[in-house]
Amino acid sequence: MATMSSFQERMENYRGIINERLHGVANKPNPTSFYEPVRYVLEAGGKRIRPILVILSCQAVGGKLESCLDAAVAVEILHNFTLVHDDIMDRDDLRRSRMTVHKKWDEATAILAGDGLVALAYHYLLKTEHVDLKEIADIFTDGIIDVCEGQALDKEYEGRFDIGLNQYLEMIEKKTARLLMIASEIGAIIGGANQNERAILVEYSRQLGNAFQIQDDLLDMETTSGKTFGSDIKRKKRTLLLVHAFEHANASIRETLWQIIHQPDITDADVMKVRDLLDACGTLRFAGQQVQLRIDQAKQLLRELPTSEARNDLMQLLDWILMRKS
Amino acid sequence: MATMSSFQERMENYRGIINERLHGVANKPNPTSFYEPVRYVLEAGGKRIRPILVILSCQAVGGKLESCLDAAVAVEILHNFTLVHDDIMDRDDLRRSRMTVHKKWDEATAILAGDGLVALAYHYLLKTEHVDLKEIADIFTDGIIDVCEGQALDKEYEGRFDIGLNQYLEMIEKKTARLLMIASEIGAIIGGANQNERAILVEYSRQLGNAFQIQDDLLDMETTSGKTFGSDIKRKKRTLLLVHAFEHANASIRETLWQIIHQPDITDADVMKVRDLLDACGTLRFAGQQVQLRIDQAKQLLRELPTSEARNDLMQLLDWILMRKS
Repeated sequence: MATMSSFQERMENYRGIINERLHGVANKPNPTSFYEPVRYVLEAGGKRIRPILVILSCQAVGGKLESCLDAAVAVEILHNFTLVHDDIMDRDDLRRSRMTVHKKWDEATAILAGDGLVALAYHYLLKTEHVDLKEIADIFTDGIIDVCEGQALDKEYEGRFDIGLNQYLEMIEKKTARLLMIASEIGAIIGGANQNERAILVEYSRQLGNAFQIQDDLLDMETTSGKTFGSDIKRKKRTLLLVHAFEHANASIRETLWQIIHQPDITDADVMKVRDLLDACGTLRFAGQQVQLRIDQAKQLLRELPTSEARNDLMQLLDWILMRKS
Repeated sequence: MATMSSFQERMENYRGIINERLHGVANKPNPTSFYEPVRYVLEAGGKRIRPILVILSCQAVGGKLESCLDAAVAVEILHNFTLVHDDIMDRDDLRRSRMTVHKKWDEATAILAGDGLVALAYHYLLKTEHVDLKEIADIFTDGIIDVCEGQALDKEYEGRFDIGLNQYLEMIEKKTARLLMIASEIGAIIGGANQNERAILVEYSRQLGNAFQIQDDLLDMETTSGKTFGSDIKRKKRTLLLVHAFEHANASIRETLWQIIHQPDITDADVMKVRDLLDACGTLRFAGQQVQLRIDQAKQLLRELPTSEARNDLMQLLDWILMRKS
């Protein structure tokens, strides 16, 4: 077709390609207790941002779509592994409006499905035809170790409100942004990026990932978002908002916040109150600024790359993530 | 030194080399909640059979010790990953006379330590200097998937006594022998094996692994072994012995066995009774023959390799495993 497709249409197209490939990842019937949960996870849908980052990073430096698809699938499988195991560790019962694996089956099944997903991720990564497969596999591997470190820090910080903002940001960078950085770096390498292009795309994803996570924390405070209002607070999760407030609010606000979040049951009215307090001490404005700052930095970086449809899509991806409601 | 060292001394030497390398695997201090359990696991000791198989397989085809040490370490780390996650799934509280990770810390810590061990295993595997790192990484990866399948089958068969002997043997081959086969195959490739040598060494490890597992089941029935007498039966684990007995014993023996193993508490006297029944229906003799058959086949295979100290050590490894008491 000669008509220019829109950003949304292209993203939908990439998602379709990825979903089709993911559909073939675990097509063995037996053992059922292993492949059924693996399929359940991989076919749950989602925004597929990480494989899209592989694709766009590859294309932004002149690479071909087909050359990076196995790696794109690998990164998405890896992401799903982290979700399955994190859900056990965080005792989350729902994910994308469906029961989590350990809830639908049991913990043993979820541990094993996650383990299998890691190996399946490597299986697809290793299909990549590239002269330096070792470099790609090293980035993938060292990235997983960082993601584990991030998850460990997240658990260590649980229930602690003496965590500084920088510590918290370092944690979310490892836990969330790192996988996006892996995606961009591997896509860039497959696409034939030079060192400068590669560094730009990795840094772009660092900013994108951190902005994405802070935005996620902010969405929790919006009644009109797709997330359940105040779900983080109700589940006593720390977010950047609370970390900032405990570091910067006055003693009276801190005391009130502390009391609310330590109640056994937190109501919508409590969350409203928390939001007002976070607003009063400047936390909501600060977080909004932090998101914007990262989006601006990412856009600035992209301008150093040659113009292309993929570069343009990477620009639009930033706005899309900023505007998202869930 | 000019004196010829014995088999035991050489094994001790290899173990020392592996242990020293394992000591350096997780030397980062933070996050403590991640690296501390990882170190705890890697420094627990053990027979280090899998890395020794990498080393001996490499040397048996003319390869150098140094060339396969990273891969040997990788295989041992991978093995430890399976132990940590299996212990959670099987709710085992003790391993090598120490608390298991999920018992000493908690489940989240153990899940994460296991995940990190997989990535650390790949990290070491990828250090291997070899022209076809992709082939080595593929074998490692597809092996992990098989091990996951084996573990899934093990869980599926739990509490079921309608499992046939062949199904059971297929399961233990994936769950136990597969990792030994990976070890030998990777060692052989690094050592520069031709296709025939490689096939021999893989098959050797298949026989060794299966013999090892059946021997393990038999040791459980010996009062003089290092294992707690009847620990498998007391923990209601199926073993080859029970699978065979339920397939081959007469109705009366099956009925008595069924009653004993379904008691809430199983005493030493019950285990004695089980052993007498397994003896009466020929199961103990059958299992002993199955071990011997595999040991003989493995020795037969080895004779096709050129003579070398490593080939001799692989021979002796079979006897050592057969004679072991724990």
